[in-house]
Order: sequence, then structure tokens, then C-alpha cells
Amino acid sequence: MRRKRIQAIVVIGDTTLANPDLTYVAGGALPRGGVYFKRVGERPLLVVSNLDVGNARKLGRVRRINTYTDWGFEKLARKYGRQSALPHLIAAVLRTERTKGRVGIYGRNDLAFGINLADQLKKLGISATGESSPTVLEAARETKEHFETNELRRVSRKTSRIVRAAMDALRNMNRKRGRIFIKNKLATVASVKRMISHMLAEEGLTAPEGTIFAIGARSADPHNAGDPADEIKEKRLIVFDIFPQAESGYWSDVTRTFVLGRADEKSRRLFETVCEAQAGSLDFLRAGVTGEVAMSRACDIIERRGYRTVRDVFKGTATSVTSGFTHSLGHGVGLTIGERPYLSFLSRDRLKAGQVVTVEPGVYVPGFGGVRIEDTVVITPRGIDNLVNVPKEFELT
Amino acid sequence: MRRKRIQAIVVIGDTTLANPDLTYVAGGALPRGGVYFKRVGERPLLVVSNLDVGNARKLGRVRRINTYTDWGFEKLARKYGRQSALPHLIAAVLRTERTKGRVGIYGRNDLAFGINLADQLKKLGISATGESSPTVLEAARETKEHFETNELRRVSRKTSRIVRAAMDALRNMNRKRGRIFIKNKLATVASVKRMISHMLAEEGLTAPEGTIFAIGARSADPHNAGDPADEIKEKRLIVFDIFPQAESGYWSDVTRTFVLGRADEKSRRLFETVCEAQAGSLDFLRAGVTGEVAMSRACDIIERRGYRTVRDVFKGTATSVTSGFTHSLGHGVGLTIGERPYLSFLSRDRLKAGQVVTVEPGVYVPGFGGVRIEDTVVITPRGIDNLVNVPKEFELT
Repeated sequence: MRRKRIQAIVVIGDTTLANPDLTYVAGGALPRGGVYFKRVGERPLLVVSNLDVGNARKLGRVRRINTYTDWGFEKLARKYGRQSALPHLIAAVLRTERTKGRVGIYGRNDLAFGINLADQLKKLGISATGESSPTVLEAARETKEHFETNELRRVSRKTSRIVRAAMDALRNMNRKRGRIFIKNKLATVASVKRMISHMLAEEGLTAPEGTIFAIGARSADPHNAGDPADEIKEKRLIVFDIFPQAESGYWSDVTRTFVLGRADEKSRRLFETVCEAQAGSLDFLRAGVTGEVAMSRACDIIERRGYRTVRDVFKGTATSVTSGFTHSLGHGVGLTIGERPYLSFLSRDRLKAGQVVTVEPGVYVPGFGGVRIEDTVVITPRGIDNLVNVPKEFELT
Repeated sequence: MRRKRIQAIVVIGDTTLANPDLTYVAGGALPRGGVYFKRVGERPLLVVSNLDVGNARKLGRVRRINTYTDWGFEKLARKYGRQSALPHLIAAVLRTERTKGRVGIYGRNDLAFGINLADQLKKLGISATGESSPTVLEAARETKEHFETNELRRVSRKTSRIVRAAMDALRNMNRKRGRIFIKNKLATVASVKRMISHMLAEEGLTAPEGTIFAIGARSADPHNAGDPADEIKEKRLIVFDIFPQAESGYWSDVTRTFVLGRADEKSRRLFETVCEAQAGSLDFLRAGVTGEVAMSRACDIIERRGYRTVRDVFKGTATSVTSGFTHSLGHGVGLTIGERPYLSFLSRDRLKAGQVVTVEPGVYVPGFGGVRIEDTVVITPRGIDNLVNVPKEFELT
């Protein structure tokens, strides 16, 4: 394996909240990011701005903390120009640490910068190398440590409280002739989202990627976030998908689909199908199963109920599938809201205990509506540990 | 210039909120990102997941929208493996578009992925190239279009309302013997931050990078976000630095420093120094000035008042500066909260009308406290247009 030849890793970030690899190796978020160095078998070194030494020390994971100034960044910038200062600084650290062999370069940054950096490092005698997914760090992050699972549990507990409270609030809003009112005003997607934002604030969470609250035909488009102007009405399918992040950088992901009042038969059948597929998937998942097989099981259930699935594309019997189960069953959750492992037809690796994934089958009927139900769960040797605690209730009456 | 030889740009993103380049070229956020192609002088093409076609159409900036499936992603994944499907897809698009010459690769992603992608593309006959900063896209984003300035103004207006409301709320809290109470409970940094989170929710903003509310000696560390357990007390310096993001992806950045009640002489002198440096910088800034010279002017004012500045490091008379004005004067704001142009000793480019920057001098006395005052402003031909409207009030009595 190519990664076995990597002798050192360098993780670069200008910010860390959107830089999961750096957050992971540094032990938390650094306002201005930094550069992390680790030779195989040696103690790591973290280089940060003068302003972030205090923050870096507080995180505590890396004990050797230097500043850019310690490594002469300003002098290098004067001598080689600002754009070449960082490659020179990285080369200086690697030489001082006596690193030989290939160096893996990680962290979320502009790709043009990364490709240029690798070229510059090569000119300075450093063999910087790319890596295909899963990288060393992706692989490390894929299986959660104990403190990570605890944190993911805490975020999912908070998120569950929000979803329950929002469903209760919706259930208890004033209704007149199928219309819903918040404080005597017609309830809209905008006003419900504002209510949810206050609930997030109260729990100390943010939703930097937004929240999906899609009603009626819009719910048939799995990624339609909902139109703020849409009125909340009875009897319409509502897909409520919330994915908040805590200050620690860890996320949760929960979806419930429901109607206010009574649902029609077509909606109910969609709900029952997705419920069955989700329950079947949760029952089936455990360490040792592959994402591909889990996905296949969910498709079995949904196809038996007469809906199409993306399997047709993978079998080659269709070029695309626009109704039915049109996406994959789930994805990993951690310092990002979408990471390995994936529960899809392309995922042949076996799941391991300690991985955290979403389980989120959905069935969509364009022009009518859709249903998706999603929990975030930990894979265990014998099954799953569901981090989400929200009833799968369909009719809020 | 190297960039002149680039014949096509490819912008890759898995998510867009943390992917300003893709948000910029696509005209807004795409939940799952996508790949954007543009040959010099030709119409762009956006390739997205089946799920995001609706979202991509709604953004409206790119008219040619295809899906990964349209370009055979699933087949390529079966044939070459999941990791090689994307390079093959990109190569197929570039060949179909008859692209010759160097191709620039952009977007925020894992660097290991980017370096590997460039290697794979080279094997497929595509000359993928890195670019040093400013990249073509950074340069385009640096000067704001009219709709961008409008959106930045809107976000700063909302942020200003929050800062004013928070300062008013703090001013009006019950005080007994120097202690502050919210609803009969001792006010802490945690309770004030919760209040601010609700204000953000009400304005439809989020603060994915957190909020700084640092009191007393902690305010001497420019990036200390404040300890949640710290009690709010009278007479202590409070640095309140808020940097929210709107759903559109655009940010604002505002800092005020104040004390509740009366301040001591030492704190007041810090405040007056920073006020003078900020006012002087705002007066001095205009199109044509370099970041370096603006920074130098701010240092002049602060040094005249007897404090040290980072100029000592750039002059080489000190290896680091840990008190006084320890950071740079400002940075660009747009689809990121820290981008070009920078107002620092390393910035030799002339500012241009339409650029949006923070102006945020600060003076810090370790062990005692610090003061920073920050506005977000548009550079104009004759000066600046301040997007922030919050009084620079020091004693909240």
C-alpha cells in the first residue's frame, strides 16, 4: 500500500472548523489553523500563529507547540516572497526533524495551493505525495475513539431534543380549516425555521449547512431545503432534516417525516415503506457487514413495496433513477457531516465497531412528495447503538 | 504570469458553504457540491449529483447542468474503482470540451486528494497545474461585484443590530455591587453568548466559527474566545468580536471593546489608543494604498502612544512581539471570513475600489487585558464605505 511508504504527515489548515483533519490531530479548533508535523513514531509538532499559542496549549493534544515566527516565517516571506514562505518553512521543519522518504500532505485547502505546494516542496528536495481516499487520516477518523463517540452522543441527544420539541410545537400550533398559525400569524417555513434556530441557540449548536424543512411536492427533492415563503398546511408531507454542529466540531444528523393532521393513503404507504426499510437496515447493520450489502438490503425492502431504487443504475438497467429510493443509505458522521464509511453500492469495506453512520432511506414521488427517516448510529460488534431518540411518528394530531 | 497559460478551470467541492470558490462560480451553495468546468471564453458546465439538479438550476448562474450519472460516474467507478472515477470523469469532460493546455484545479478539498488527482490527471494526458496565491479565482473574488457588496452590507447591517442590542442588554442588566445579573442569575460568558445566539437566530445568521466574548485578562489574548464560566463583572475590559455568516455564504466581522460601569485609567488609555489608530486607518484607507502602508500608519499611531507593534519583527529588531499591537490591521471578507486583500506588512498590492476588508487594530497587555475595535468596510476610490453602524462606546453605564 502506497501509504505505508509515507514517513511523515503534514496537516495544513487556515481554519479548523472547516478543516476536520487539523481539528482531529490538534485535538480541537484553532481560530487561525496551523501546520501539524508528525514523523512516524515520533512526537508531533504544531506550528501556529503567535495569536493561537494559548488556544493550542489549551487543546492539550500536542505538547510541542511553536509559532510561525519561531521558524522565521517573516524572514522567509521577505526573502522568498509571501507565497513561498510556507513551503520553505515546511521544508525547514522536515529537515530539522530529519524526515526522509515520502511526506503526505493533508488538510482542507485550495487545491491550486496544494498542487503548487507539492511542486515547490519537490524543488526543495521534499517528496510530497498525494494519497487516494481513504487517506491515513481519513482511515484514523473513520473509527471513533471513546471521547469522540461520547461527544457525538451528546450532540445527537441535543439534536433529538430539538426535533422532539419542534414536532411538539408544530402539533400544538393553532389550526383553523387546515391552516396553521404561530402567534396568530400564518405559519411558514421561514417562521418554523426561525423557531428551530432559537432551539439550536438554546442547545449551543449551530447549523452552518442549513436545515431542510420541505413541505408538499418540494419534499420529493431530497435536497430541497424548503422555500421560506411556503405555508405550513395540514395533510402535506413534511421532511424535516436537521444536521447541527457543536463547538467541538462534531455533528449529528436526524430526519423525520410527518404530516400535521391526517395523511392520505399514498403518503402513508410511502411512510410505511421507509419505516420498514429503516428498521430493517438498523436490524441488519453490525460490524463485518459491508455498506454495499446494507444498501442492497434496504433496496430489497423498498423494491418489494413496488418502488424503484438506484440499484437499477448500478445494475446498468437504467441510466438514472428519479423516483423511489434515489440516494444511498447513509454516510459517516464525525468532524464532518459526510465522510467514510458510506452505505452505498460503491462501499465494499466491512463496517467496524466504533464507526458512526447515518441510516436514512427515503422514497420520493416527483410532483407529490417524499419521505425520509434518518438516525445517527454507532456500529457495534453485534448491531448498532442508536444515538437518536425521537419517535417515528407520522401524523401529528 | 503562469496563470495566463491556464486554458480551463475546474472547481471541485464536496460541500459549498466551506467551499467559497465553488459557491462563487456556481452562484450559491450546493448541498453536495459539484464540479465546475470552464474553458477560457466558453460557457461553463456544472456537474452535480442527481439530488442537486433542482438546487443548481435554482441558483441560475450556470445554465449547462449535468449529473455525475450523465457522465457515467457509476460505470467509471465499477471499471476503475471509486477513487479513480472522478479523475476519469474530469478527463472525459475536458476531452469532450476539447480543452488543450494547462488546466487549473480549484476548490477547498483535502490536499492529499488534490495532489493525487493532479497525478492521475497527468496520467490521463491532462496537464493539471497548481497556482500560487492569488489564484485566478482568488483574484476574481477579491474585488466584489455589486450584488456581493449589497449582500455584505445586508449581513453587516444585521450584525450591527446584534452588537447594538447586546451592548444595550448588557448596559441594562441588573447590577449589585459590581456584579451583573440576567433574570436573577449571575451573568456569565455562557449566558451572554446564549443571548447572542438567540439574536443571531432572530436575524437568520449563524456563527460557525464561534463568537469571542473575552473578559478581563483573557481579552489580552486576541483569539481567546472567552471562558463560558467567567462571570461578567463591572470595570473589566470586554472584547466582543462577532463574525456571523448568512445563508448566502457571505460574512461580516465586527469588534467592540467596552467595560460595564467606569473604567480605570490604564484601560481607558488602551481604548483611546486603539480608537485613534482605527479612526486614523479608516481616514487613510482608499483605493491605491497598499496594505503594507496602511498597516504602517496604524503602527505609527500606536507606537507614538508608547506601545510596541509587530513592526519590530518585520524590522528584525525583535524575534516576536507579545504585547502591544501583535497582529495585522485587517483582512478581506466575502465568502470567507479571512481572505485577500490583507492589511499587513506582507501586502504590497494596491487596494482596489470594491474590495471589502476589516479594519481592526488592537493593543494587548498580557495579564491585564486588551482592546480591539473592528469594522468591515468597502474600499472606494476616495476612501471607505463603512458597512458597520455601531457606536464606539467604551463605558456602558
